[in-house]
Amino acid sequence: MKLDSGKLDFSKLNGLITAVIQDHATGRVLMVGFMNEEAFRRTVETGYANFFSRSRNKLWLKGESSGHKLVVKSISTDCDMDALLLQVEALGPGVCHEGYQSCFFRTLDGGEWSESEPRAYDPAGVYGSRS
Amino acid sequence: MKLDSGKLDFSKLNGLITAVIQDHATGRVLMVGFMNEEAFRRTVETGYANFFSRSRNKLWLKGESSGHKLVVKSISTDCDMDALLLQVEALGPGVCHEGYQSCFFRTLDGGEWSESEPRAYDPAGVYGSRS
Repeated sequence: MKLDSGKLDFSKLNGLITAVIQDHATGRVLMVGFMNEEAFRRTVETGYANFFSRSRNKLWLKGESSGHKLVVKSISTDCDMDALLLQVEALGPGVCHEGYQSCFFRTLDGGEWSESEPRAYDPAGVYGSRS
Repeated sequence: MKLDSGKLDFSKLNGLITAVIQDHATGRVLMVGFMNEEAFRRTVETGYANFFSRSRNKLWLKGESSGHKLVVKSISTDCDMDALLLQVEALGPGVCHEGYQSCFFRTLDGGEWSESEPRAYDPAGVYGSRS
């Protein structure tokens, strides 16, 4: 498949574009990541979500260590073509490396952030000891 | 209500944080914007989504010209506290200034971006002539 990434605008975030990850079945927003052009190309070509890690400054296949890969069902872009929305099937019990189904597990409640759901798995068993 | 914004990490994007806007009833992702601390504070205090426009370099109440405001139902943040997810009720026929219900109206289809839905309203009638 040829790839029409040329129209995407990677210029606003120094070569990166925001990627929102949504569960294709439940509609839940699971995480937000960033892609550079190469991460986008790998995502389209492999069918698994790849990102660019700003903290580690490297390409990153989501699930490469946990096995919790994201199988891409569809990819949309917005009016300015500077953001992506990926509908995915999330493999494994949770997307968040802290053990939750979604990274968005804290909700503002009376002016304070509070955990709004229990953990879905033990991250120590997946990513190794956190100590 | 006191506001616990201090824990949010605005440092990774030069004072901004990514904000994903999701329809609270349908689950559809409507747009992605950016907030600085002041936009976040105004959002919480007023109950309407406020953003910081990177292109116009100013605070921006979504709907200030179109009337298509976003009524905030809940706000979540992610594990790194560098992204927000807002569940909203979107006033008006569409969120996108180009006339679509969602800004994510283009989907990758066979390697090409193609419009995947019809316009929900005529933007010229809301924002004035585009000529």
